[in-house]
Amino acid sequence: MSNIEEQNLTEFLLEVKAKMANITLSENEAINEITSYILSNTGKFIRSKIIFLYGSEIGVKKPKLIELASAAELIHLSTLVHDDIIDEADIRRNKPTVVNKWGIKKAILYGDFLYTKTFQALNSLENIAISNELIKCAENLIDGEFNQIEIRNNNTVCIEQYYDVIEKKTAVLFSGILKCIGIEKKLDTHDLELLKQLGLSFGRAFQINDDLSDFNTSEITGKAEFKDLSEGKLTLPVILLFEDSNSNQQDQIFSLIQSGEYETIKKKIIDSDCFKKARIEREKAISNCIEYTERFIKLDKLDNLRVFLKETLVA
Amino acid sequence: MSNIEEQNLTEFLLEVKAKMANITLSENEAINEITSYILSNTGKFIRSKIIFLYGSEIGVKKPKLIELASAAELIHLSTLVHDDIIDEADIRRNKPTVVNKWGIKKAILYGDFLYTKTFQALNSLENIAISNELIKCAENLIDGEFNQIEIRNNNTVCIEQYYDVIEKKTAVLFSGILKCIGIEKKLDTHDLELLKQLGLSFGRAFQINDDLSDFNTSEITGKAEFKDLSEGKLTLPVILLFEDSNSNQQDQIFSLIQSGEYETIKKKIIDSDCFKKARIEREKAISNCIEYTERFIKLDKLDNLRVFLKETLVA
Repeated sequence: MSNIEEQNLTEFLLEVKAKMANITLSENEAINEITSYILSNTGKFIRSKIIFLYGSEIGVKKPKLIELASAAELIHLSTLVHDDIIDEADIRRNKPTVVNKWGIKKAILYGDFLYTKTFQALNSLENIAISNELIKCAENLIDGEFNQIEIRNNNTVCIEQYYDVIEKKTAVLFSGILKCIGIEKKLDTHDLELLKQLGLSFGRAFQINDDLSDFNTSEITGKAEFKDLSEGKLTLPVILLFEDSNSNQQDQIFSLIQSGEYETIKKKIIDSDCFKKARIEREKAISNCIEYTERFIKLDKLDNLRVFLKETLVA
Repeated sequence: MSNIEEQNLTEFLLEVKAKMANITLSENEAINEITSYILSNTGKFIRSKIIFLYGSEIGVKKPKLIELASAAELIHLSTLVHDDIIDEADIRRNKPTVVNKWGIKKAILYGDFLYTKTFQALNSLENIAISNELIKCAENLIDGEFNQIEIRNNNTVCIEQYYDVIEKKTAVLFSGILKCIGIEKKLDTHDLELLKQLGLSFGRAFQINDDLSDFNTSEITGKAEFKDLSEGKLTLPVILLFEDSNSNQQDQIFSLIQSGEYETIKKKIIDSDCFKKARIEREKAISNCIEYTERFIKLDKLDNLRVFLKETLVA
């Protein structure tokens, strides 16, 4: 990205953050205190970056993109507050989670508060097709989390189930925001479908990348190593290891997970080439994503977007 | 109410329930199972009754009233699912709560699911003023619960704080639905303000009545006796008892609450006439409510509405 493009993006993200602060402002100071805390540690704003990069190229005006991005980031944030309760997560992005700092009762209500403010923001977009699309995303995120609890510690999970869960819990919001850009620009059904597919492949790559990072140290990822594994979440490398094992070996893997012997699991994944296989799955998703991207992005901007995708999807 | 009016109301409530089932239908069978459970035990549908009784009189068409009522009931239900987690409540309406039956993780996600479906329903009303009003109600409900946690077991709470909490956690949704009827009928600002005041006084009376019922046996109320007291919620009779006591006596009352000696508290409330005082507060609110009602309801229907208000607000 050129300096001027970098600068535009940085400026955009600051405006999204300001909009989010504005949307979430409450009369209740105790609630504002939590908001300041989480808005000071919002991560990489991947959803906003996508909205900016693709939205600008497709020709959607900046104020609309800011509205969309702030709503998308708020949907994401709302789910994180409750997910951290469900996952019993103490740390997110190197800082204590809301549930860890304020307790479960306030964390539940604070998550509800964020949802409500998000829907208020969607309502003020005054575009029912867009708010419907994003509310549907929220429903899918919740559905995906619900399914994840159901299959947690389940030793019959297969790769199809895995893709079903990550589609809902991660990919759908990416495809939703891209569709919303298309709706805003009044693109036809065919193009909307392509944008949806673009988002789904991006989301798939994004989640596989996140799964792979569960085996990296927390200094790199900002979350504890083996966090997913210890929460009973079956990430792609582990599922591939299962698929590569016979029934006895599967039982053994399960015992190792249950007794917390994560380094042994990691060694098995390396020995059976399952990290490599997971990386191949990620590459497939990235290729799909680039292929769809080529239909929407002008040739001279494609290299920039390729760099962004690689940076975001290959940790 | 005449037989035909009773029959119309019963039919209306069934239609609201059918609409709620329709709105909340999910592709996820595990979610549908919880929905069936809670829709089979939805309580008295007070919000729907108000919408029907006042809405019909003001001249709003039935399909609109059904949409409004189902959205209002769903907002109320969503907050109950999370409130029961926060209050650690095992029983609601004589049946195990969602958190008790499905555990905290699913109860959090299920509450989120209901919120999302509710906002989907609001979105499909295609009336931004109405959805804004009801989303604002949801925000206030959450805010009220948040404040209730803050003042729980707080021995400096006064009657002003009490009215502030119950306005948000109870009264605002009643005033919101009445305002929505007015918005639908395109009433002017003055009338909308009167409907808002009507709802606030109804809500106040409703909550005081609920507070008084904390000292009745569970066979009558469907919830455990002293439920609020044991959760550290300061209900009106207890707050009046505090206001009636000197500092030493207040400390003693607090010790009694903390050690679970609720019968002794009840006796003190009786001896100091604080139940009577609470009932006077309830009467004041009911009188206000009837006064506002007279501005909207035709003379020949007023008696019916008075009966409904007495039945609903005096347990």
